[in-house]
Amino acid sequence: MSGTRGLFLLFTGNGKGKTTAALGLAFRAMGHGQRVAMIQFIKGSWKYGELESARRFADLLDFHVMGRGFTWKSDNLDRDIAVAREAWEFARATIAGNRHQLVILDELTYLVTYGMIPEQEIIDTLTARPSSMHVVVTGRGASDGLIAAADLVTEMCEIRHPYKKGIRAQKGIEF
Amino acid sequence: MSGTRGLFLLFTGNGKGKTTAALGLAFRAMGHGQRVAMIQFIKGSWKYGELESARRFADLLDFHVMGRGFTWKSDNLDRDIAVAREAWEFARATIAGNRHQLVILDELTYLVTYGMIPEQEIIDTLTARPSSMHVVVTGRGASDGLIAAADLVTEMCEIRHPYKKGIRAQKGIEF
Repeated sequence: MSGTRGLFLLFTGNGKGKTTAALGLAFRAMGHGQRVAMIQFIKGSWKYGELESARRFADLLDFHVMGRGFTWKSDNLDRDIAVAREAWEFARATIAGNRHQLVILDELTYLVTYGMIPEQEIIDTLTARPSSMHVVVTGRGASDGLIAAADLVTEMCEIRHPYKKGIRAQKGIEF
Repeated sequence: MSGTRGLFLLFTGNGKGKTTAALGLAFRAMGHGQRVAMIQFIKGSWKYGELESARRFADLLDFHVMGRGFTWKSDNLDRDIAVAREAWEFARATIAGNRHQLVILDELTYLVTYGMIPEQEIIDTLTARPSSMHVVVTGRGASDGLIAAADLVTEMCEIRHPYKKGIRAQKGIEF
């Protein structure tokens, strides 16, 4: 990757496929032998299926679940902010560590939306990443600043969702 | 999966992430030990990265590239239709074979758009699939009939694309 500039990709919108597309990018990158870090900011957004598949890439994939026990529904705002800060500092250290060609910050948008981490601090960190590193941010409701800072933004727009037809979540598809 | 109904998912729109989201679904499903068939209707839409990663799932993943040498730019329409028909018949046989929990029909929408295969024939085949089988269709410009038939439709909407800023395709991200 030396000599090529890494991209900042953003998958947002209300539709399905944001985290799944990030998963697919990891799958693709690891096929090139690239090291990937996946950092999950919302507990449970990565499910059993991908955790099991990830075992086959133990040589290339570093997987981290942040915010253990963090539900975003706490009635203790100070504690929530402290947990978000700890998670974000881990992501910053991962980026600065420069051991990965692709860093996925899954559901990071919520930390901005809920005012946990200043948007500008995130943008500054992503902008100052190692030049060949790709970074992927996912999550609904990406802020205007994140959208402006990204090289590529795809909005996943929901056209139809099976739950609205009364169909329950399916193993292998939803979890 | 016995007892649960499979879903028909459709990823369409002009934005990036359609095929990548299908890849991510395969990754998730295989984590559950589910067998997956990936059928690529446009030569080259699956790139080196995912082909290499797929080797780690040789026990679960059947990967098929259809339309070998088929560019969709041929000046021989009869030959194009014959190649599309052959590819579609392979997909039908794969679905009827019922050996997979997830069947991905990558870029299938073009066969309808270009009038190669009647839309109703595709809808009938997908509707009559084994009841527990999930099927994913990707491609731009999904026809109204496909959208109406799907259980879940996500439109990947392009907000910003790096090529418009003059950035070239990146290994591990685009191919």
